[in-house]
Amino acid sequence: MQVHESTPVATLVDLRVDGARLWDSLMQLAQIGATDKGGVCRLALTELDRKARDLFIAWAKEIGCSVRVDAIGNIFARRAGLRDDLPPVMTGSHIDTQPTGGKFDGNYGVLAGLEVLRTLADANIRTLAPLEVAVWTNEEGSRFVPVMMGSGVFAGAFTLEHALEQRDREGISVRDALASIGYAGDSAKPHAVGAYFEAHIEQGPVLEAHDTTIGVVQGALGQRWYDVTVHGMEAHAGPTPMELRRDALLVAADLIHAVNRIALDHAPHGRGTVGWLDVHPNSRNVIPGRVTLTVDLRAADDASLTEMDAALRAACATAGEKAGITVDVEQVVYFQPQPFAADLVAAVQQGADTLGFSSMDVISGAGHDAVYLARVAPAAMIFVPCKDGISHNEIEDARADHLEAGCNVLLQAMLNAAQTTGGTEA
Amino acid sequence: MQVHESTPVATLVDLRVDGARLWDSLMQLAQIGATDKGGVCRLALTELDRKARDLFIAWAKEIGCSVRVDAIGNIFARRAGLRDDLPPVMTGSHIDTQPTGGKFDGNYGVLAGLEVLRTLADANIRTLAPLEVAVWTNEEGSRFVPVMMGSGVFAGAFTLEHALEQRDREGISVRDALASIGYAGDSAKPHAVGAYFEAHIEQGPVLEAHDTTIGVVQGALGQRWYDVTVHGMEAHAGPTPMELRRDALLVAADLIHAVNRIALDHAPHGRGTVGWLDVHPNSRNVIPGRVTLTVDLRAADDASLTEMDAALRAACATAGEKAGITVDVEQVVYFQPQPFAADLVAAVQQGADTLGFSSMDVISGAGHDAVYLARVAPAAMIFVPCKDGISHNEIEDARADHLEAGCNVLLQAMLNAAQTTGGTEA
Repeated sequence: MQVHESTPVATLVDLRVDGARLWDSLMQLAQIGATDKGGVCRLALTELDRKARDLFIAWAKEIGCSVRVDAIGNIFARRAGLRDDLPPVMTGSHIDTQPTGGKFDGNYGVLAGLEVLRTLADANIRTLAPLEVAVWTNEEGSRFVPVMMGSGVFAGAFTLEHALEQRDREGISVRDALASIGYAGDSAKPHAVGAYFEAHIEQGPVLEAHDTTIGVVQGALGQRWYDVTVHGMEAHAGPTPMELRRDALLVAADLIHAVNRIALDHAPHGRGTVGWLDVHPNSRNVIPGRVTLTVDLRAADDASLTEMDAALRAACATAGEKAGITVDVEQVVYFQPQPFAADLVAAVQQGADTLGFSSMDVISGAGHDAVYLARVAPAAMIFVPCKDGISHNEIEDARADHLEAGCNVLLQAMLNAAQTTGGTEA
Repeated sequence: MQVHESTPVATLVDLRVDGARLWDSLMQLAQIGATDKGGVCRLALTELDRKARDLFIAWAKEIGCSVRVDAIGNIFARRAGLRDDLPPVMTGSHIDTQPTGGKFDGNYGVLAGLEVLRTLADANIRTLAPLEVAVWTNEEGSRFVPVMMGSGVFAGAFTLEHALEQRDREGISVRDALASIGYAGDSAKPHAVGAYFEAHIEQGPVLEAHDTTIGVVQGALGQRWYDVTVHGMEAHAGPTPMELRRDALLVAADLIHAVNRIALDHAPHGRGTVGWLDVHPNSRNVIPGRVTLTVDLRAADDASLTEMDAALRAACATAGEKAGITVDVEQVVYFQPQPFAADLVAAVQQGADTLGFSSMDVISGAGHDAVYLARVAPAAMIFVPCKDGISHNEIEDARADHLEAGCNVLLQAMLNAAQTTGGTEA
């Protein structure tokens, strides 16, 4: 096996990314849409998104990459392989942010990929398979839904046409927004991918709680989201005795407890959250007549998720019957649990071990572009800790040494896949 | 004892109000501020309030009443007694409404009083003590707080100056609003009241549930109102395992249940309501970081209310400790439990019995002008059923026969008090 005529495999294991350059690029990108509180507001397909895309492409071209844009605006920066007919080993993430987003969510995955390519360019190392860094359009879903739009189209989760027709709150369509920033590409057909890696901040507290540098992501939780409406009877808080009430908020409290219990019953990966709740009429001395709330259930396997669904529906029925009121439950989102590819997960683990970083198996509780990519290619993810587990927040923070470590693991995992994907070439 | 030279007492028991006239007056008054949905929007001290006041005064003058307005805009329509030096037997209520109010709340008490005076005028009956019908300013508190403003000033619950300085959302003071509608009277000093009765729709479901016409109101519940803030930790619903969460809404659910339990522990009169609740950031896939909610506790006696206060504070502490988060509790309103005067309550009961109406002892869960009046004079209330117990709603409704029955009980009770207040006169 030969990757580059003058480079024995031994030296590849010693190869390291430039952590300072990675950090500098992250900080430079974070200036586009920088907020006063140290975060980033760079919504998908805005002028700020265009500037960030332009900067990424300029950086990619500096190191000799070719760049393509597909019809939903996904960017693919490609570094040719020795056997360029092989499907690429891809990495990437997104550079759109939440309205009060941080510097690292998504941006890290894109710039870690760029740093891998820069490192290989500096060392004049060619891989067998080509390497690509993808910038997926509108992962956050803050301006346009559905979320993970670019990777969703790429993976066939929904159609290109469906995505292009979505509109923001001002009525601007994805199609028009893409055209206005000059990122409506013409490559509508997804290309084959040999392997997909994505480095990301954890967005949770587990790695930090375990003082661990690398999260070896085994897969992503499945998700079921619901809208629940509790129909009680609005009445005066004073003159209405307790036994004659039909208090919608009291039933909602039962459901909040039930959602928590359902998640605990499916430990360790079960999750249950009521994140949004609205009381009507929401007046201090009026018994709530109607409560609407959301439920977010997650589990690592579909059997658990199905059990949790049944338990939620039973809890709604029981709580409603007890109080003599109606509870409506509507499932509004379903994401299947998504295990990652065993050999790619092993490559991530091997990278962490080889480099001597502490690591642990984790599962992604959130959706990521990699979760859609896993439907059409072998995929895996690398998590690094973020401060206090906080993201989607201007105070989102991560340590430079952790970001560098994750990037080095990504480098090793990609080299591993790019060497073996194409077999050997004498 | 002699009430009118030509009228033996026996005929007074046979005296009846004109139910159709009462209903017609209610419907006529309801046209001022009528809403499309059949309700009334007539906020305190607006032009609509002025028109309604003017109409009431015109009606009162038609039957020979003298009219005074005090410095907070309370109107007193007085029918002279044979011994006009005696403190008046007063009745009344309010004619301001909620923004989506009904035709009966308050208006009934005022027009029932007017109907009593009209009936006595028709029958040419004079009472020993003078009779007065009061229209109390701003009972609802929808435009200006505090609620029950006119009766509160009259009873010394707060000062005239404090009330006059309150402003609505547009910055208009009570003082200026009173002046602009021409109802800033000059009589700042409250006058003595011999007895105070107030007829009112129940605003609750108890009478209807018991198929009973007259509620003999024994007193009013005391109230403690609180603002509660639960300080959790906002985090991503996906990546945050259940055991690492500090979910403010889960603690709020504990408190909603605790408030309900505390009320049930103080049956039959204990009441506990969480009517208002706000979740931050209120996003489907974010664990709630902060929840603010209100608590409304009511009880018939101060010992119970004190126990309930202690139980609420203990529940907040326990729920917070269990979850490792902080719960702040602040009491924002206190109304003492207010028993009504035994002899006046007996007069109401006697009126119902004499007239053959079904009746039951009830307690007022809501505040009323009578609750403040009870601080400075013997007071009692008469409740009649309202449809489904609903008020503060444009669909508020009541039956004409119930309204007539309550008005006849009011007539008998006022005659009883007005005859005996002054003793006999040969």
